[in-house]
Amino acid sequence: MFSFNYTSAKPNRARLGILTTPHGVVETPAFIFCATKAAMKSLSAEDMHTADTQIILSNTYHLMLQPGSEVIEKMGGLQKFTGWHGPMLTDSGGFQIFSLGHGSVASEIKGKRMTSRKKTLLRISEEGARFRSYLNGREYLLTPEESIRIQRQLGADLIVVLDECTPYHVDKSYTAESMEMSHRWALRSLAEFKRSDIGAQQLYGIIQGGVYPDLRKQSCDFVNSHSFFGHAVGGSLGASKDQMHEVVSLATEHLCRDRPIHLLGIGGISDIFSGVEQGIDTFDCVHPTRLARHGGALVRPMHNPDEMREHINLRNSQYRLDDSPIEPDCSCATCKNYSRAYIHHLLKAQEFLAYTLISTHNVAFMNRLMTAIRVALKEETFFQVKKAWSR
Amino acid sequence: MFSFNYTSAKPNRARLGILTTPHGVVETPAFIFCATKAAMKSLSAEDMHTADTQIILSNTYHLMLQPGSEVIEKMGGLQKFTGWHGPMLTDSGGFQIFSLGHGSVASEIKGKRMTSRKKTLLRISEEGARFRSYLNGREYLLTPEESIRIQRQLGADLIVVLDECTPYHVDKSYTAESMEMSHRWALRSLAEFKRSDIGAQQLYGIIQGGVYPDLRKQSCDFVNSHSFFGHAVGGSLGASKDQMHEVVSLATEHLCRDRPIHLLGIGGISDIFSGVEQGIDTFDCVHPTRLARHGGALVRPMHNPDEMREHINLRNSQYRLDDSPIEPDCSCATCKNYSRAYIHHLLKAQEFLAYTLISTHNVAFMNRLMTAIRVALKEETFFQVKKAWSR
Repeated sequence: MFSFNYTSAKPNRARLGILTTPHGVVETPAFIFCATKAAMKSLSAEDMHTADTQIILSNTYHLMLQPGSEVIEKMGGLQKFTGWHGPMLTDSGGFQIFSLGHGSVASEIKGKRMTSRKKTLLRISEEGARFRSYLNGREYLLTPEESIRIQRQLGADLIVVLDECTPYHVDKSYTAESMEMSHRWALRSLAEFKRSDIGAQQLYGIIQGGVYPDLRKQSCDFVNSHSFFGHAVGGSLGASKDQMHEVVSLATEHLCRDRPIHLLGIGGISDIFSGVEQGIDTFDCVHPTRLARHGGALVRPMHNPDEMREHINLRNSQYRLDDSPIEPDCSCATCKNYSRAYIHHLLKAQEFLAYTLISTHNVAFMNRLMTAIRVALKEETFFQVKKAWSR
Repeated sequence: MFSFNYTSAKPNRARLGILTTPHGVVETPAFIFCATKAAMKSLSAEDMHTADTQIILSNTYHLMLQPGSEVIEKMGGLQKFTGWHGPMLTDSGGFQIFSLGHGSVASEIKGKRMTSRKKTLLRISEEGARFRSYLNGREYLLTPEESIRIQRQLGADLIVVLDECTPYHVDKSYTAESMEMSHRWALRSLAEFKRSDIGAQQLYGIIQGGVYPDLRKQSCDFVNSHSFFGHAVGGSLGASKDQMHEVVSLATEHLCRDRPIHLLGIGGISDIFSGVEQGIDTFDCVHPTRLARHGGALVRPMHNPDEMREHINLRNSQYRLDDSPIEPDCSCATCKNYSRAYIHHLLKAQEFLAYTLISTHNVAFMNRLMTAIRVALKEETFFQVKKAWSR
């Protein structure tokens, strides 16, 4: 039911893959869209399908709290519940627990500034992570075994081990100890996964080790030596793009090549090109839909007067009378029928339709980007395509 | 380019019509959906098309303030701007000016309680209505001529004369004086319409007169005697369903039969049946999409345990594990792919997709209702169909 096959490509460690799941095939490199609460923001399953989407993910943390994994299990699992009948992945729940818990570790992991936010993480111990629900304050304990049990109920094709997500600012000794605990959690996850395995799901291990090359190598050796179906690069990727590229390069250098490699939480266009070059097979990020909620539409450099950005902001008054589509040569459902001027009006008028129309374009854009990358790898035109799509 | 043809049907004054416009044909009785700010709430033009929609309307008041009628004219008119290429109607702007101005006359006209709200109506005079923009406080004067000029720029197929909308609580002498001024405004609207007529639009006159039979008859005689393409029943329809049915019956009794008759702002299912019986050809109301934003899904009585309502509220916890669609025998895009349990979850999780999915159903429901009514008129099964669809 599951397989991953690849052929090596140029440049560097780039490759073309076929990831087969019970719900369909994913051609890699691919982008995985975030349907956080079992729903894409402002888009239906049909919209995602029309935009040529291959695979989406949902977040265990949000779903275990609302509606509860047992509800989704009773409703036949995520695919039946959401109406999205293609391949799916769930994460372990860890990222959000630690993210909300440390006061936005999401930014911290990416090396950005600390923000103050109500802390919901109560205690991390060998047993697991104790936290409060962001919805009602109820206390939960998420253990590696419980994360697997919940992800079994949710029923996505690809599931992920629980790990501790360390922020960027912690020192090497904390990072090392945390990584070792995450490895022990990974073994407990794997044991629970094997105990309940009926062949309907596959498990990804996570590489930790922060920005420290020796720890990253140690973590790669660890996941390589255990029977995970795939690997995900997690933890802090540093404070700069360069540092991120180094960490990713280090990971893909050491990871065994016969398993798919996922890069967690990265969705910038130039970052995707450098990830692909280093051998990353799949990416995920909330960026395409979050950007849409702020009026941002992804465009290639040829359509963008702003040399610092990978998007245009349709809230800007320059689009008030612009009757061209977001991208004149885009064939998405939005660009076929709607102008920048109309979307500008919808944003100003606070019509929800604005978010649907921009999200439709951004999702189609990301899928078109990944298709262009796969074609470039086949035709050995990676750098020309990279230049056409990113700064 | 424009025509209206009808055949009489049973019961009472009911009829089947064909309303032809440059953007397509509307089979009547029909429901006109409100795309207030040149957008259906949470639905795209394609969604409306897929749900078998025949005609939509936009509100002159909202569009003259944002983005401005000159923007829509420059962008090629409402149909090109919105991507909805079918028939459209705009109202005159009057209803919202008086509605916001009197402190929610919308409720008042329908006989409901007064609410306190910031008043934006500054002065009603023979010249027109002076008001402040609800967006930025800027002062505007809307005259009958200006309303026609703006509706020319917006470019809908069917446009409407400016009238004063009197609340329910005003007395007969105010209602009579107001009606007479509205008649003078209607003549000025008609003169301006004729002055700028190139055959691309048609004008509706409005019947006023509140709940007073002699005034209503006088207003019917007035519109009958002038060259309006169609007639709309406006003003206060009373404080109860019975009073509304009386007012509507009185109007359709006196109106000439060769023009289409629109009933302004009415969208309840049983009200539509009684309107059709009395000879109403088209209805409009924000109800289907407003209801959706509160979690309400329209269902026929056979699917509704609540005998007092024409909808079910999907927020209710009874739907948490209900894996049936909103209506098992509905073929809309929502009922084909999504369960009540999923929509219940989306509402609880405050996902915009909830509003899109319910609105999709509610719009398809209204279109299916109107089709059922037309078939019933053809097959003389009106009362059986009425019983199957309404309490």
